[in-house]
Amino acid sequence: IGSHSAEADSQTEWTDVQKKIIPWKNSTPSLDLETAFQDRATKLGKSNSRLIVVASLIDKPTNLGGLCRTSEIFGASALVVGSLHYIQDKQFQYLSVSAEQWLPLVEVKPSQLVDYLQQKKTEGYTIIGVEQTAKSFDLTEYCFPEKSLLLLGNEHEGIPANLIHHLDVCVEIPQQGIIRSLNVHVSGALLIWEYTRQQVIKQKQQQ
Amino acid sequence: IGSHSAEADSQTEWTDVQKKIIPWKNSTPSLDLETAFQDRATKLGKSNSRLIVVASLIDKPTNLGGLCRTSEIFGASALVVGSLHYIQDKQFQYLSVSAEQWLPLVEVKPSQLVDYLQQKKTEGYTIIGVEQTAKSFDLTEYCFPEKSLLLLGNEHEGIPANLIHHLDVCVEIPQQGIIRSLNVHVSGALLIWEYTRQQVIKQKQQQ
Repeated sequence: IGSHSAEADSQTEWTDVQKKIIPWKNSTPSLDLETAFQDRATKLGKSNSRLIVVASLIDKPTNLGGLCRTSEIFGASALVVGSLHYIQDKQFQYLSVSAEQWLPLVEVKPSQLVDYLQQKKTEGYTIIGVEQTAKSFDLTEYCFPEKSLLLLGNEHEGIPANLIHHLDVCVEIPQQGIIRSLNVHVSGALLIWEYTRQQVIKQKQQQ
Repeated sequence: IGSHSAEADSQTEWTDVQKKIIPWKNSTPSLDLETAFQDRATKLGKSNSRLIVVASLIDKPTNLGGLCRTSEIFGASALVVGSLHYIQDKQFQYLSVSAEQWLPLVEVKPSQLVDYLQQKKTEGYTIIGVEQTAKSFDLTEYCFPEKSLLLLGNEHEGIPANLIHHLDVCVEIPQQGIIRSLNVHVSGALLIWEYTRQQVIKQKQQQ
């Protein structure tokens, strides 16, 4: 297998990826996303998750690639990124282990976030910021709604003040150590897990 | 600041790190570890955690550095690594954000693991393997004992069969996606979190 074949393969994969990407600013973004994750749920033979992970504020391809893998594994309905160009980054790909081929990805630029969050509110999503604030809920005490949208902060700046006003709630992870804060991929993974755990327990109680 | 200063700083840091490292094969390893994490608990003003995270089977410095940061933040009592040389690795240091200066580190080589696990059993620890097996408990259903030791598997091979026999229990993370498995740092983080969450809830119930 020569380098030409390898390039051809990579071309094919990219086309596959493109099919999974839902441009948010199209005429019927919500319908598209709904269809995409119903398709995926059918494929997985499970009921649809209603968890959207918004990583538009995250800069590092390693964190985005890791979040892509973790979100796919827990059946999140979509991962929102600031730019689709990250998918072509080698570090992203190394960490995502091809999860971007299965998980719907949506591009929402940081400047579009306020509009996007408002739109999701009208669709019934609770907008949850992962951030330490004076009014944050402790993760051990927070009960996730079925339609949850997690907004993760930037690696250095967290969630900027102008976005905090648009959140329904902030949730923080209680931390005991001397090191100040968890890596953003890990923080995101813990909230994704906690959402999943609560949904699993609810489903068992209903049976 | 010239290169000489920088080297001197790094020398000082390394000496600090050394103080936090407990050689397991000394005459009274348990006493040393006990003292080390009581010191730390006093520093943090918290009751002692009794969680030991064993990462001796993990090869990648990035995963070890990440686990060091996460273990420190959740107040684990120690992180066990296959070699203390990892601490000098740049990728380890980048991911650990200096957590190795606060968290007790213990070196236990993979070949010493059986003896180490037996020793910890006699000290009252429950030996928990993070692995998918036919008999694994689902993480949503497992109740962690106060003295828990988590054994994490290798990135590629998981936990080898000869070690599985020495575990008290295996716990697996229910996964819904198409991608086969979580990154080992994330798996470890979810179990560390779940242990912490259960301890927090127990402490609140006792108040």
